[in-house]
Order: sequence, then C-alpha cells, then structure tokens
Amino acid sequence: MNGGVSRSQGTHDRRHGLRLRRLGIDTHQEPVIYMRSDCHVCRAEGFTSHARVQVTSAGYSIIATLNQINSDLLKDGEASLSESGWRLLGAGEGDPIAVNHPPPVLSLGRLRAKVFGQRFKDHELAEIVRDIVAGRYTDIELSSFVTVCAARDLDRDETTGLTRAMIDAGESLRWDRSPVVDKHSVGGLPGNRTTPIVVAIAAACGLTMPKTSSRAITSPAGTADTMETMAPVDLDIQSMRRVVEREGGCVVWGGAVRLSPADDVLIRIERALDIDSEGQLVASVISKKVAAGSTHIILDIPVGPTAKVRGQEAAEGLARSLVETAAAFGVHARVMATDGRQPVGRGIGPALEARDVLAVLQVAPGAPQDLRERATLLAGALLELAGAAGAGAGQAVAAEALAEGRAWAKFQRICEAQGGMREPPVAAHCRPVIALRTGQVAAIDNRRLAKVAKLAGAPIAKAAGVELHARLGARVEAGDRLFTVHAESPGELAYSLDYVAVNKDILELAEP
Amino acid sequence: MNGGVSRSQGTHDRRHGLRLRRLGIDTHQEPVIYMRSDCHVCRAEGFTSHARVQVTSAGYSIIATLNQINSDLLKDGEASLSESGWRLLGAGEGDPIAVNHPPPVLSLGRLRAKVFGQRFKDHELAEIVRDIVAGRYTDIELSSFVTVCAARDLDRDETTGLTRAMIDAGESLRWDRSPVVDKHSVGGLPGNRTTPIVVAIAAACGLTMPKTSSRAITSPAGTADTMETMAPVDLDIQSMRRVVEREGGCVVWGGAVRLSPADDVLIRIERALDIDSEGQLVASVISKKVAAGSTHIILDIPVGPTAKVRGQEAAEGLARSLVETAAAFGVHARVMATDGRQPVGRGIGPALEARDVLAVLQVAPGAPQDLRERATLLAGALLELAGAAGAGAGQAVAAEALAEGRAWAKFQRICEAQGGMREPPVAAHCRPVIALRTGQVAAIDNRRLAKVAKLAGAPIAKAAGVELHARLGARVEAGDRLFTVHAESPGELAYSLDYVAVNKDILELAEP
Repeated sequence: MNGGVSRSQGTHDRRHGLRLRRLGIDTHQEPVIYMRSDCHVCRAEGFTSHARVQVTSAGYSIIATLNQINSDLLKDGEASLSESGWRLLGAGEGDPIAVNHPPPVLSLGRLRAKVFGQRFKDHELAEIVRDIVAGRYTDIELSSFVTVCAARDLDRDETTGLTRAMIDAGESLRWDRSPVVDKHSVGGLPGNRTTPIVVAIAAACGLTMPKTSSRAITSPAGTADTMETMAPVDLDIQSMRRVVEREGGCVVWGGAVRLSPADDVLIRIERALDIDSEGQLVASVISKKVAAGSTHIILDIPVGPTAKVRGQEAAEGLARSLVETAAAFGVHARVMATDGRQPVGRGIGPALEARDVLAVLQVAPGAPQDLRERATLLAGALLELAGAAGAGAGQAVAAEALAEGRAWAKFQRICEAQGGMREPPVAAHCRPVIALRTGQVAAIDNRRLAKVAKLAGAPIAKAAGVELHARLGARVEAGDRLFTVHAESPGELAYSLDYVAVNKDILELAEP
Repeated sequence: MNGGVSRSQGTHDRRHGLRLRRLGIDTHQEPVIYMRSDCHVCRAEGFTSHARVQVTSAGYSIIATLNQINSDLLKDGEASLSESGWRLLGAGEGDPIAVNHPPPVLSLGRLRAKVFGQRFKDHELAEIVRDIVAGRYTDIELSSFVTVCAARDLDRDETTGLTRAMIDAGESLRWDRSPVVDKHSVGGLPGNRTTPIVVAIAAACGLTMPKTSSRAITSPAGTADTMETMAPVDLDIQSMRRVVEREGGCVVWGGAVRLSPADDVLIRIERALDIDSEGQLVASVISKKVAAGSTHIILDIPVGPTAKVRGQEAAEGLARSLVETAAAFGVHARVMATDGRQPVGRGIGPALEARDVLAVLQVAPGAPQDLRERATLLAGALLELAGAAGAGAGQAVAAEALAEGRAWAKFQRICEAQGGMREPPVAAHCRPVIALRTGQVAAIDNRRLAKVAKLAGAPIAKAAGVELHARLGARVEAGDRLFTVHAESPGELAYSLDYVAVNKDILELAEP
C-alpha cells in the first residue's frame, strides 16, 4: 500500500451506446458481436478484431468476441450479435446495448499454474467452473483447460473438487423417495445402447430412475442422441420431475436440465479435440448423478483392445476413481467390467441404435440378443444394489419384466410423458461393404468402425451410421455384407466410404 | 486387406459451386466462410454451423470455419468470406468457389497421443507443423498443442525436432559472408529494448546482422512492435536481403519474412493463453536464427524474481537447451545471464521504448544509462564471439561506436533502407501514479508493471504503455511520480488505472 493512483472520477464515459440490428449469422455456440471498425465505441475503447468485450443490455451482460465490419452491413450507431449472442443476452431488435472491456478473468491464472505443474485447489476449480458457465472462457482457453486436465492428470482430490464445482454450478434435484437409481456406461463401445432398456425395466420394477444422458462426446451417438429419435429429450427440470413422478423413470438430455452446465460446454471442446480424460470423465459422470439426486448407481465399463478402456488394470483404476468419487458425495456405486471386444447390438448411430432398443423392448424375434443380455445384466445388478431383487436373482427379475412386456409398456408411457413417442428416421443413402474373401471374423476395430459412422454424419445426422452384419467368430463368405453405411447426404456417404476404402481391415477376417 | 468397399464412381458430385460476395467482416486471423443455412451445398454435404470446410477457388484451397446465415444477407447461390479468408484464398468479388469436406487432419492423432503421454517423434512434429502452417488447425486444436507442449515438457530431441520442423516449414536465408551474427533476449523484462542498438553497433563495426524480431507474445512490446514506430518492419525476404547487403544489418518483423511461419501462428495462441513454454521458446528462437542464416548468436537471459526466468537454476537449464539446440544446427551460441530485477530503460510499450533507444543512439544527455550499459555489454559479447574484438575488449569497442556517433549514423541508414525513418507516436491520454508516502524503492514487480502497460493498450496501441520514473534503491518523496500511464483512448487509460488502483504495491517502498 505504498503507491496510489491519482484519478478524478468521471473522466471516462462508460455509457457506450449502440442499437442492435439482427443480421442472422449463426456462429454455433460462440457469442460474437459485430461492430463497425470505425464505430466510436471501438475507437474510444481501443477495440480491435477478435477482442473480448462485455455486452450489456437491460442490466444483463455477456462476454462476446468482436468481429469488425468494414462495409455498410451496419449503419453508424448499430451493432449486431451472432444468433447465440441474441439468445444468451435475451435481447431484441433495436435494443440499446453498452459495450465495454470485460473484467479480467482471474481464474485463467489458476489454469496457467496447472499447465506449469501446480495442483488445482478446490476453490480454484470452483472459480474456473463458474467462469466457464458464465461464458467468460474463449474456445482457446477452454481447449487449454480440457488439454491440461488430460495431460496433467487430475488426482483424486482434484477430481472430487472438479465434481463438486460442476455440481455447484448447476441445478440439483432432490426426491422424496429412496433409493433413487442410475446407470452409466463409460462408452467407447459402439452401439451398447442399454440405457433406455435398463430405465424401462427399473421403472417397471418400481424403482425411481431419473436418467439424464449426454449427447455424444467422441462417439457416433450418445444416449440422448438415440433417445431423441424416439421421444423429445430436451425437457427442463420441472418437466423431467413431472415425468419421473408419474412414471418412475425418464431418459432426458442432461444439457437441457442444466444439472451440470459446465459439462455441456466442456463436451463441445472434448468432442472437437477427441479427448475425454479420466478426471473429466469421472467428474462429468458423478456430478450429474449427484445433481440428479441418485443414491445407488451401476457403472458399466466395457473392456477391450479397441474400447475406451483397453485392459483390466485401466478398468480397475477408473472403477476405483468412480466409486471413491461417488462415495465422497454419499452415493453407492458398483462397477461392472463388461466385454468390450465388439459393438453390442447391430446399429451404430442414433436411429440405428434406437431400432435395436425397440426390438429388444418389443421382444421382436430378430432382436439383438447381445444387447438384450447386456441390458438385463446391468438392470439386474441395479435391482440387487437397490434391494429390489435378492443377491443373484436380479437378471432373472429383469428378464421377466422384459418377457412379460412390462418394460415395453413402461417405455411407451415414459416416451408419451416426455412429449410423445416417435419413429426413428431412416437414412436416404445406404451402401453395403462387402467381404472380399471367405473367412472368420477374428477382430472388430471399434474405434475405426465408430469413425466410419461419424464420417457418415452421426450423431448430428440422426439416421446416419453403421449397421453391423457380422459378429466375432462368425464365418462370412466372399460377397457377404460385413456392414452397411447409412447417411443422410451423398457427400457424407462418399466421405465415409473414402475412409473405408483405405481402412480395409476394420473387420479382420482369419482363414476359416 | 479382408474387407472392401463396393462403390461406383461418380455417384457424388463434388462440384458444389457458389459465387463469392464481399460482406466486409473482419474475424482477425481465423478464416470464416458465410453460407446460407438453406444453401444446397450445406444440405448436400450435411454442413452445420462451426463445421470445418474446404474452400477452393481457381485450384487453390483453404480450410475455413462455417458460419451460417439465417437471413437475406446472402442471396441463393452466394457465399462470403471473412477478410482473412479473402486474403488467404486470393479471391475476388464474384469468383466461383467449391465447398467440400476437408481431408481429415491426421496429425491431430499425434497431438492426442502426446496429451496422453507419448513423446513426439521428428516426423510427427514435421506433420503437425506443416498442417499448422497450411491453416488446417482450428484455434481449439492450436490451443491444445500449445498447452500440451507446456504441460508435457518437450525433451531435448523433441525440441530439436520442433525447431527443425519450424525451419523446414518456412523460407531460409543463405549469405555469402561469414560470420553472420544475431542476438536474442528471452524477455519477461519490460523495456530492455537493446536489439536496435546492438544491431546498429554490430553493423557499424562491420558485422552482418540480419535481425528478424517477433511482435509481443505476452509482453507489452516486442522488438518488431518497437522498431515499427521508427521504420517499416514488414519487409519481405527480398527487401530484407537488400537492406542487409547494403547496410550490414536490419531489424524487421520475422512474420513478414516468413522465416518461421508456424511460429507466427503459435504466437497468437500463446499470447491469448499467456503461456510461453521452454520447448516452444527454444524452437521459436533457434528456428528463426537458423533460418536467417546466423552462425554466431548471443542470448540474453534476464534473471529476477518477477522476470520470465526467476532463478539461476532455471536460467542454466534454459541456457543449456538453447545452446545445445543451436549446436544441433551448427550454430555457436553464448548465453549471458543479466540482471532482471527491474525494467531496463524508462519506457514500457512500443513508442516509449523507441524513445529510449533513440536517446541512447543519439548519446542524448538524459539517455537511460542502464539501457546503454546493457546494449554495449551484449554488443561487446557479440563482437568477441564473432572475432571482431579481442577477449574482454568487446564492450569498449561497442561503447566507442556509440560515442563516436557511428552507431546512430548506421541506425538512420538502416531505417532509411527499410523504407524511411519516422517519429514514434505520442499518447493522447497520460496520467501519473503518485507515491503516497516517502520511502526507498525496494522492489519492482515486472509482471504487474507489464500488465499495466498491456491494459493501457500496448502493444496494439503503439503509443500506450508505462514510463517509469523511479528505479530500485531510489528515494522518493510523498507526491513524487512513480510512473506515468500512457494510453491512446480514455477507455484503456481508465481500464489500466483501475488495475493500478487495486495493485498499489507494484513499486514497493521501504522505510527510508
């Protein structure tokens, strides 16, 4: 306290008024403000293109990236926002706005310290997550956070701290019943869409299962993407509560419920980088379960050479981290390591997986038995964990609920309660991929198969993906279809098939 | 080679024609393409907002980020580019373009592997750097690369590999004379603008010094920013060669010369993240020296509690890395660890530092003696290293060149050869910061002082920055000026002074 600033107040007029005009530019999530480069505000504040600025309208502020206009697209005194900017600010045509330098984002200093090897403290993670949810981080800064959490592993305390920060930054549900159950698959295995089946069985057996699911991070489909082809999933928290109170279960998109809004921001960056690190995975999963009010959860970790988790040791490490982090919030978790050597079910991609789910629920003759088996295994474990079935009897109870049509009836009621059941879409452009010779399927590369589905447009193109015709151990003849690529546009079909053409061993055929 | 794709050619028409119309939107460096959301290309290819697309015009392609237009800003069949997009593609109003899915960027897989702990191999770094220079990385991906290079330290081999990759991705200069000398300060110390003085002395003493400098990364001014207030610095490689052949030296911006174009891309991200890691620092410095054809270089590492390098041990590690990496390319490097406890010179910010440089060169009575001393020390070491002065005699030879006005005459000729000497600008808005009590200056916080200059608008606002009135050990009376903040706009002046108001101990005063 030895130096001080001599400064008269009022030398600087901060009311930099402009009026908003809609240009209709969609920049996806990133809020952008458009201002004339010769605008008096840019000149007075020294703003140049790509500056981060604070935009205020009717007392509410957002941070946006500046794009300058060197033409008459905007008139003097006008500014515009990207579509996401209009949405976030809640502003309307002609509204007056003020544009200023944003306050410095102090939590970026914590992020830098982590990059250079310091541990995150709880309050630092809380600060970072608050700033992320408030939209104060640029994509460049978000990417640095996602990268450093993967490159400088989060330890147990940091993982718990990140989980708590993510819970505190969103809404939380409390239920007047117990147990409240949940289930999560770590993913990395194409297909494996057990969740809608497990929810239907659990709710049919009287359990409470308020399931929130994510959209795909690095995979061709998340449960929310798949469920959306059968019923609306973007329910708000009140609608979700109504569905669960009426039917005992739901399958909704976590992002709309805002149980962990930070996660929804991070997922976009993780998806762009194709990075999903253990610490962030655990914080993402457990924060949503805790915020949803769950008391008992089953965690499915598929293990296989091309699954997300490749070996028993890695599975045990992840399982420990999940169970211990859950325990820190008073939640009972049980982990099941499952076979992750090949996809579960036939479809890969939102609508194709939905068809598998429907076939199992409807006890259709051609329903994929591996998916049925996996779903009843997990549902059974959940029934046992929650005390709704005796030890060892869970899977039989679950299978019965399926066989008697109670799960299917419950699923239809849940879909209706979520806004109405619908038919998954069918792709306009399909092309089979053929075995060039006779042989036995010796290995299936989950990652490259997922890549084929993603290049075909999944998960954004709902009907796109891969339909798998051969399974491990199956004998195929030359000319048999190995899998079929589905796409909604010819460009995406071609793009995906280009990849298949240079990756001919996605299904490896051994001598018969 | 067991599966194959059955596909007839020509099912997919890749000639997706649109015509370009200029909208005048400046997104800074990031190329953006604007297309109507209902455009037939978006529909056929399945493009959604924020997709990465390949834009081709007259056989030349760039990768751009898609922003979709939901209004009549563009007519059917029209598309537009951001200003950087027009520049990169070299396209004109009305030109036809094709828009397609870009080829997958395979080097991103190498980046992910590094995030998860694998080392970079040489050819992987070469691939990554080539993709970066070709504009194939998004800001999110660039940020991940910068972050992982800091979080997962690059080892010596990786640093050499990155250096080589950066050299190979740009142009290189060869000279028909030897030695060719260079000098680099690691930075982190505000002011310390020795380079223009060292170049003038070295050239005046007959050495060849083709100096390329960078703009600021995390500091309020880079040498290129400062030099630009006295002469043009964005010379191309032919112009630079002409200046050096005529005058023996130059001070130009490395970005325009494109000696290390990858570095110019990375610097923007490093600046945004305020991260400048050892491996990238070494690769950045050495790649430019090697590409410039240097044979002998002096490296100045200021050491101090608030400099970039804080202690002797860190300085030695960095020095080793610099000297060994230089040696891998046959370049002789000598490191000088200098006093980094306080700024060198009085000015902090492009124009203010230029005034110090001019005062020293002109042997003005009030010239900052610490800057004069530092510049002759480094120039002397360079003269000795290059064999132009005997051991121990270098600094005296350098001081003589200054005192006799030969350095000043040479500097003026260099500026003229670069396109004409000019006067550094003066800030319109200044405000002194006053000592609140009497005391002796016990410490100066370089980092926060630099922050004050940056918040005032440096380096983009050339005249902005800080003028320091008191040095370590000086006695100041209550009411004396400690430093003066200079800004080009009232907004930036206020923003900077807001920071000073809550950081009162940037100059620490002890009891007298």
